[in-house]
Amino acid sequence: MNGLPMSFPYEGLPARVRIHEVGARDGLQNEKTAVPTHVKAEFVHRLAAAGLTTIEATSFVHPRWVPQLADADELFPLLADVRAALPVLVPNEPGLDRALALGATRIAVIGSATETFASRNLNRTVAGSLAMFEPVVARAKDHKVHVRGYLSMCFGDPWEGPVPVHQVVGVAKALLDLGCDELSLGDTIGVATPGHVQTLLSALNEEGVGTDRIGVHFHDTYGQALSNTLAALQHGVTTVDASAGGLGGCPYAKSATGNLATEDLVWMLDGLGIETGVDLAALTATSVWMAEQLGRPSPSRTVRALSHKE
Amino acid sequence: MNGLPMSFPYEGLPARVRIHEVGARDGLQNEKTAVPTHVKAEFVHRLAAAGLTTIEATSFVHPRWVPQLADADELFPLLADVRAALPVLVPNEPGLDRALALGATRIAVIGSATETFASRNLNRTVAGSLAMFEPVVARAKDHKVHVRGYLSMCFGDPWEGPVPVHQVVGVAKALLDLGCDELSLGDTIGVATPGHVQTLLSALNEEGVGTDRIGVHFHDTYGQALSNTLAALQHGVTTVDASAGGLGGCPYAKSATGNLATEDLVWMLDGLGIETGVDLAALTATSVWMAEQLGRPSPSRTVRALSHKE
Repeated sequence: MNGLPMSFPYEGLPARVRIHEVGARDGLQNEKTAVPTHVKAEFVHRLAAAGLTTIEATSFVHPRWVPQLADADELFPLLADVRAALPVLVPNEPGLDRALALGATRIAVIGSATETFASRNLNRTVAGSLAMFEPVVARAKDHKVHVRGYLSMCFGDPWEGPVPVHQVVGVAKALLDLGCDELSLGDTIGVATPGHVQTLLSALNEEGVGTDRIGVHFHDTYGQALSNTLAALQHGVTTVDASAGGLGGCPYAKSATGNLATEDLVWMLDGLGIETGVDLAALTATSVWMAEQLGRPSPSRTVRALSHKE
Repeated sequence: MNGLPMSFPYEGLPARVRIHEVGARDGLQNEKTAVPTHVKAEFVHRLAAAGLTTIEATSFVHPRWVPQLADADELFPLLADVRAALPVLVPNEPGLDRALALGATRIAVIGSATETFASRNLNRTVAGSLAMFEPVVARAKDHKVHVRGYLSMCFGDPWEGPVPVHQVVGVAKALLDLGCDELSLGDTIGVATPGHVQTLLSALNEEGVGTDRIGVHFHDTYGQALSNTLAALQHGVTTVDASAGGLGGCPYAKSATGNLATEDLVWMLDGLGIETGVDLAALTATSVWMAEQLGRPSPSRTVRALSHKE
C-alpha cells in the first residue's frame, strides 16, 4: 500500500466536499498545552499548504474564558498571506469589533440548542443568547462579513439527555433568521447515530433549510463521527467540520477524543473518490509536527497508522 | 444522558444484526500479555451474559504459532455451560481432530485472498491452502459441524497493494465450494472505504453469493470500520464481526487499534434501533474488567467514554 486508499465511488454521494478545518480554534482551545503564537501561525500556514480552503483560525472571545486563544490579536495579522478563508469565532460585539479591526471577512457565533448548555456556556437563556447575537450578525452583514452559526448540543445534552428534533430546528431557524449564512450542526458530546442525523436533516429540509446551508460537526467520543458523516453525505450535505490530527477533546469524556480527525475523514473521502483538494500526506505530516509541539501523540487513527509505517 | 443512545431508524437497514464476537480469539491472539486460562473462561462467560450469541472461543492452531492460545484444550471444556455458539479456529486436520475430540460444533478456517499473505501466514499458495482446507471442511461437514471461512486481505494487502475484486470473489467462491457455510470478509489492514465494500458485495452477489452467507470483518486502523459496517448493512449484510473492547491489534500499524470494538458497533446499532440482544452496559463492564487483566486501557471509544462518566 502506498499510504492512500483506493477510490471506489458510492452511489448518491456528492462529487466534492468542503472541509471546514477547526483544529486551530476548536482544537487548540481544548488543549491544555500552551502553544506559542508563532507555532499557531505555522500550523495555519501548513494546513493551507496541505490544501485546506477553510481554516477557522482563532477566537475573539475574552481571554479570561479561553486563555489558550488570548493571542488572537497577535495571531491574525500573521496569517495575512494565507490563501484560505479564515473564519474567526466572535462571541459578542466587543469580539466583533476586534475581528473587524483586523480585517476578518468571515466570523462564527456559537449558539446552543439547549437551555442548560446556553446557561453554562453562554450564561444566558437560548433567547438571551440569540438577542446577544442579533447586533453581532447585523453589523457583520453590514460589513459584508460571512457569518457561520454553530449550534451546539443538536443531538444529546449531558444534563438534559436527548434533545428533541423540533427544538433544534427552532433554534436553527432563529439563527438563520438573524442573518447567518450557514449553520454547523454540532454533536457536542458525540452521541449521535446515522438515523438521528438524517432525521434532523430531514426536519430542517422540511422547514425550508436546505443542505446547502448546513455543515455537520461530529465528535468521535463514541467512535460514531465518520459513520454519521457518511449519513450526512447521503443526505446531500457537502460541508464537514473536522480537526487536523483530532486536536481538542470533549471535556465530558476525559480520555476520549473530541473532534472528528480531518485525516480519518480525508481517508474516507479519498476512498469514495470525493474531491477535497487536501493532500493527505502533507496533512498527516502537519499533524505529526503539531503533536510534537503538544508533546503527545495524535488521537487520529489515520495519522497513527500512516506515521508508523516502516 | 443515561449512557445509551437514542433510537432513530435509518431506511433500508436490517431489523436485526448478529454480532460474531472475536475478542477471545482474534483479540487475545494479538495481545502481548499472557492471559490465564481461567480469566479467558470468565471472559467468555461474561460475554455470553452480556447477550452475545456467537463467541469465537479459541484456536486449535499449533501452540508454536500462537502461544497466546496454547491452552485451547484446557479452555474449551470450561465453556461447556456457556449459552452461546462457540466457534473455534482450526488451521488443519490435526486442529480439527482436537476440536472434534472436545465436541466443538462450529469451526472456522482462515484463507487469504492474496498469494503473499497466504505464503507468509499459511506457508502455502492460495491453491495450496484451499487444498489443505478441503479435508478439514469435508470431515467437519461429515460431523455436521458448521464451518465459517475467513478470507483475509479482501481489500488491500501490505505487500501487494490494492486487491482486485475479481481475485477476492474467486477465492470466496472456492471456499464456499469446499463446503463453508458462511464467509467472513476481512479488511485485515483496515484500508477499505464504503464504496469498496459495496463494490465487493455487489460482485459477490452477481456470482450468486448472497449476503445471507456473508459476514464482514473490519479493522479500525484508519478509523473506517464503523462507516464500512454501515455500508455493508445498507447492502443487506446482517453478520458483523467485532472484538469486545477493541481487543487485539494489527501488527502493521503498531499504535493503531485492530478490530472494530463491539461497544462502538453496539452504540451505532442501538442508535439505529437494530436489535442485537447485547446489553451495552454489561459488555462495557466486561471490557473494563478485561482491560484491567491486560493492564492497559481499552482502545474502544465507547468503553472509554462510558467508563469515564462521573
